[in-house]
Amino acid sequence: MATLPEVTDAYCESLWLRVSNWGRWGADDQSGALNHITVEKRLRAVRDVRTGVAIGLGNPWPVDPAPDNLWPAEHRMMRAGDDPDYPGVPGLSVALDYLGVACHGISTSHIDALCHVFVRGRMYNGFPATDVKITGATRNDVWPMREGIVTRGVLLDVPRALGVPYLAGDVRIGVADLEAAEAASAVRVEAGDVLIVHKGREARKAAEGPFDPGVAGLAGLHPECAPWLHERGVAVLGSDGMNDPQPNWAAPHWPIPIHYLGICGMGMALLHNLETERLARHCEEIRRWSFLLTIAPLKVRGATGTPVNPIAVF
Amino acid sequence: MATLPEVTDAYCESLWLRVSNWGRWGADDQSGALNHITVEKRLRAVRDVRTGVAIGLGNPWPVDPAPDNLWPAEHRMMRAGDDPDYPGVPGLSVALDYLGVACHGISTSHIDALCHVFVRGRMYNGFPATDVKITGATRNDVWPMREGIVTRGVLLDVPRALGVPYLAGDVRIGVADLEAAEAASAVRVEAGDVLIVHKGREARKAAEGPFDPGVAGLAGLHPECAPWLHERGVAVLGSDGMNDPQPNWAAPHWPIPIHYLGICGMGMALLHNLETERLARHCEEIRRWSFLLTIAPLKVRGATGTPVNPIAVF
Amino acid sequence: MATLPEVTDAYCESLWLRVSNWGRWGADDQSGALNHITVEKRLRAVRDVRTGVAIGLGNPWPVDPAPDNLWPAEHRMMRAGDDPDYPGVPGLSVALDYLGVACHGISTSHIDALCHVFVRGRMYNGFPATDVKITGATRNDVWPMREGIVTRGVLLDVPRALGVPYLAGDVRIGVADLEAAEAASAVRVEAGDVLIVHKGREARKAAEGPFDPGVAGLAGLHPECAPWLHERGVAVLGSDGMNDPQPNWAAPHWPIPIHYLGICGMGMALLHNLETERLARHCEEIRRWSFLLTIAPLKVRGATGTPVNPIAVF
Amino acid sequence: MATLPEVTDAYCESLWLRVSNWGRWGADDQSGALNHITVEKRLRAVRDVRTGVAIGLGNPWPVDPAPDNLWPAEHRMMRAGDDPDYPGVPGLSVALDYLGVACHGISTSHIDALCHVFVRGRMYNGFPATDVKITGATRNDVWPMREGIVTRGVLLDVPRALGVPYLAGDVRIGVADLEAAEAASAVRVEAGDVLIVHKGREARKAAEGPFDPGVAGLAGLHPECAPWLHERGVAVLGSDGMNDPQPNWAAPHWPIPIHYLGICGMGMALLHNLETERLARHCEEIRRWSFLLTIAPLKVRGATGTPVNPIAVF
Repeated sequence: MATLPEVTDAYCESLWLRVSNWGRWGADDQSGALNHITVEKRLRAVRDVRTGVAIGLGNPWPVDPAPDNLWPAEHRMMRAGDDPDYPGVPGLSVALDYLGVACHGISTSHIDALCHVFVRGRMYNGFPATDVKITGATRNDVWPMREGIVTRGVLLDVPRALGVPYLAGDVRIGVADLEAAEAASAVRVEAGDVLIVHKGREARKAAEGPFDPGVAGLAGLHPECAPWLHERGVAVLGSDGMNDPQPNWAAPHWPIPIHYLGICGMGMALLHNLETERLARHCEEIRRWSFLLTIAPLKVRGATGTPVNPIAVF
Repeated sequence: MATLPEVTDAYCESLWLRVSNWGRWGADDQSGALNHITVEKRLRAVRDVRTGVAIGLGNPWPVDPAPDNLWPAEHRMMRAGDDPDYPGVPGLSVALDYLGVACHGISTSHIDALCHVFVRGRMYNGFPATDVKITGATRNDVWPMREGIVTRGVLLDVPRALGVPYLAGDVRIGVADLEAAEAASAVRVEAGDVLIVHKGREARKAAEGPFDPGVAGLAGLHPECAPWLHERGVAVLGSDGMNDPQPNWAAPHWPIPIHYLGICGMGMALLHNLETERLARHCEEIRRWSFLLTIAPLKVRGATGTPVNPIAVF
Repeated sequence: MATLPEVTDAYCESLWLRVSNWGRWGADDQSGALNHITVEKRLRAVRDVRTGVAIGLGNPWPVDPAPDNLWPAEHRMMRAGDDPDYPGVPGLSVALDYLGVACHGISTSHIDALCHVFVRGRMYNGFPATDVKITGATRNDVWPMREGIVTRGVLLDVPRALGVPYLAGDVRIGVADLEAAEAASAVRVEAGDVLIVHKGREARKAAEGPFDPGVAGLAGLHPECAPWLHERGVAVLGSDGMNDPQPNWAAPHWPIPIHYLGICGMGMALLHNLETERLARHCEEIRRWSFLLTIAPLKVRGATGTPVNPIAVF
Repeated sequence: MATLPEVTDAYCESLWLRVSNWGRWGADDQSGALNHITVEKRLRAVRDVRTGVAIGLGNPWPVDPAPDNLWPAEHRMMRAGDDPDYPGVPGLSVALDYLGVACHGISTSHIDALCHVFVRGRMYNGFPATDVKITGATRNDVWPMREGIVTRGVLLDVPRALGVPYLAGDVRIGVADLEAAEAASAVRVEAGDVLIVHKGREARKAAEGPFDPGVAGLAGLHPECAPWLHERGVAVLGSDGMNDPQPNWAAPHWPIPIHYLGICGMGMALLHNLETERLARHCEEIRRWSFLLTIAPLKVRGATGTPVNPIAVF
């Protein structure tokens, strides 16, 4: 891999100047890079569907504590087959359960709203962090995503491009790697795409066992990719990891520059912790790395993100 | 409206014999009426997309207690703009929150898995209720839906067919009403469709204020519709209410026959509490009542249902 | 009952001037009226114990939605007798569950911390409301109660003093009523006591059925009691209701003056929704209305209150 | 330390025969060893109070994930000082929060109900495990503790008796150690006492840093102590750890014999994860190792345990 620039505050600041979309879609805009998804773009994605094969990219709801799951999601049964008769309602025999999750972090498949991170006390488009109240975000929540995100999805399979089964924990992906993956797949990332970068996290876990990304590392994008993402007009960026590598960068004010430059600067929502291994295998098998993608965030006013199971259709 | 048969245990039993799909797709089948969705069906639905307009059918996450929301969903902020700096991670400035829900019931948009209801101690395809454990369902959970449900959606707008703004609480929809709505829309419900029956619940709430469905009633399908749904091969049935009317029927063993005949007998998953008013207005405006529908259940092993925001694309 | 003053902002302001304890125990004090509980006071309470009878004053964990329980507490089993074997641990056979509660409100027995309410943007002892962060209260949380509140408890049985089985929803208790209850019990409320005012909420519920306090009313203290509580040096005030009556007063800035004058002005924590009927019956039977009381708040840093089950020993 | 017997299934079975209290207090009894706490016992404990010093033995609500806290307790603010005005209620300015916990395990201070563990499919007094339903325990829940547990508490400070600052992870405490601690404190454990065994977990954590008890071990009682506890008539057993050592014993059916012999056989509830360092320091300072103890479980019908903050008064 090519040598990548050192990640310092100054370097990240310089990238910020190149990628900021603040004001680009108006002073009140809260949709950010979703503006790249026009109905024409959506229709093109729909018309590219060929086989009808569907794959859900959400990962299994992570209920078990692990080094990479410090805040387990909750699935608690409320009524089951040992006592199914609902009290007070003759003949009603049901099973019920409860789901709960603090979806941010390195475990649950989720999408970040544009209020999720702050740079210098501000979120995307310059709204103050204090617009995110104890009672919910009053700006830049998931609400602008409520009709779903429906557009073309593109998978860039970096391990395949690099000829490895999965990326080691210390790999930092640069522009050259993304373009190598493009070349290897005969696909070009374009405006309005949801870009999904496959790193092989599941294969790594299968090979090495559960690991703590803070200790063993987790591959991610080097911030030099931000201008490339900006130039290409990526609507949403996703991966099987955190998009930013783990552990965080040491730049004092830029620990997670892809989040800061992407979500806060570009207004580009991030998808994390997707299950991409089956997707990558399927793409390889049919020799096609693009698909119709539908992301259906829960419609939670004020939320900073929601769990999702994005659906790819080929 | 036509006179509808009295709903007794014997009547429901007779319907059961007509609609049961137990064994139809094999002794181990846990997908039920989703088997009607072939890749051809899906491709036809994809190819019918014309305008690219997308509408999310999930309702706003219902966090406020109300007569029709006894178990409020939870949205709790964990970190907000008044204290965004994450402890121990220099420069990390974020907002975080928590979502939780017991999604069954009359408030949250959700899909029922085939383990949600039991008839005579058994669930769809004859598996015993006791396969639903304290630790989760070992059969008929949401897992068979994990790749998403992607097919044609059809809206039957019953108030429009009947020339009323919304259905009153005591309306029980019969086959004649469904077919009147079909006729008024020049659409025919076919095998593999997700059928969504619009009843005007939001319009009613806007006109009458919040109401308790157990007291003021909520329109729903009369069980005579079950054989019709079965014959048409509906894959999933949804509505802006509970599909079954409220209050429950008085038949001692059949309080919610659409659930029992549909989920348990036919293996037909149900969608509840959708936001269909905007959908109905849009269909009317463009004079088309079918669309590509994508339902993306969360991938929770053992779950009896999950909250969803189904995405319609026209 | 005597005629009680009209409750206006001006009236409440005048009471504030008479009861404020801000600065009384130092500029940094966060214990408020708990300062009245000296070790001597505690020892006197201990030495008054005679029979050894113990009664728990917490109410049953309120898990069922009701007009007076809009935010049901949660009790969810996680492992039960139908599937008790813990995975991965041979021979481990257990039952597990989960408890959750937003304890404030009119249902759960709980104690309010001194950060629970704000008057003019400030909490007890003048700390700004903004010291209560999204991440927890940095002042006036439950922490100062962490060693338990152990002192004399006194029950004032107002229905008994007034010769009624329970107080109607529109009753507003004045000083004369409190003193009538004192006289009828031959007890005098003194500095450092936990005062529990019995109103007969359980008897009313048994007689009238479940009711919505916002509609049917709930008896409570008239704000004229605040100077009396202040003069007597009450350490903690509790009752079987909300201490303040329901519905709230119409004074624009003083909807709940007992909370505002008591918690915020006097630094006097409040106990709500206690189960006092059995306590009242026992006191009447043994003709003694004082006891050793132990309140054991959970030690949650930053909490605005915790559920409690105060234990009375006679 | 003395050599301790090997812990095998056969050995534990032999202990079971010596300690079982099934039937001792009647076929319907669900209180178990709490029957040892008579009013006379309670009154003696009350009368032994001398100084009025109170100490809360609950540990701080453990919200942070750690090797010894895989299921963090929850404290989530719902309303704080950045947005305190309650919607729809003029003048109401409050802070609110939510608490949740799955209290069993090695982190939260809690008391186990007698339905928490099963031996051969049965719980205390022979009730079947299946009486613990998905909807809660119908026998042996925390309900029999609802009036509080008020009796004498005794601290046995094992590190002090052994002349060490804290017990290493591989220490298994035998009868000789308990009796050495008794001798060093001039106290004798008697019928109806709550026995608290101090092991120095907090001191160990302070010295060694956070550790995973499954890996680094955690001191606990050897099962040979069970007959001793039985003979002495201990009402409740507690400690700063899990009472049983960690990791679990390798006997295939007896991984946690103190739980199985104690809770299930003797009907002796267990208290876990107490904060005992300050208690031990205070006992040493005043040269007295007994006190009045009040445990106030939350009154949750059907619960397998509740979080507690036991209050010691000297």
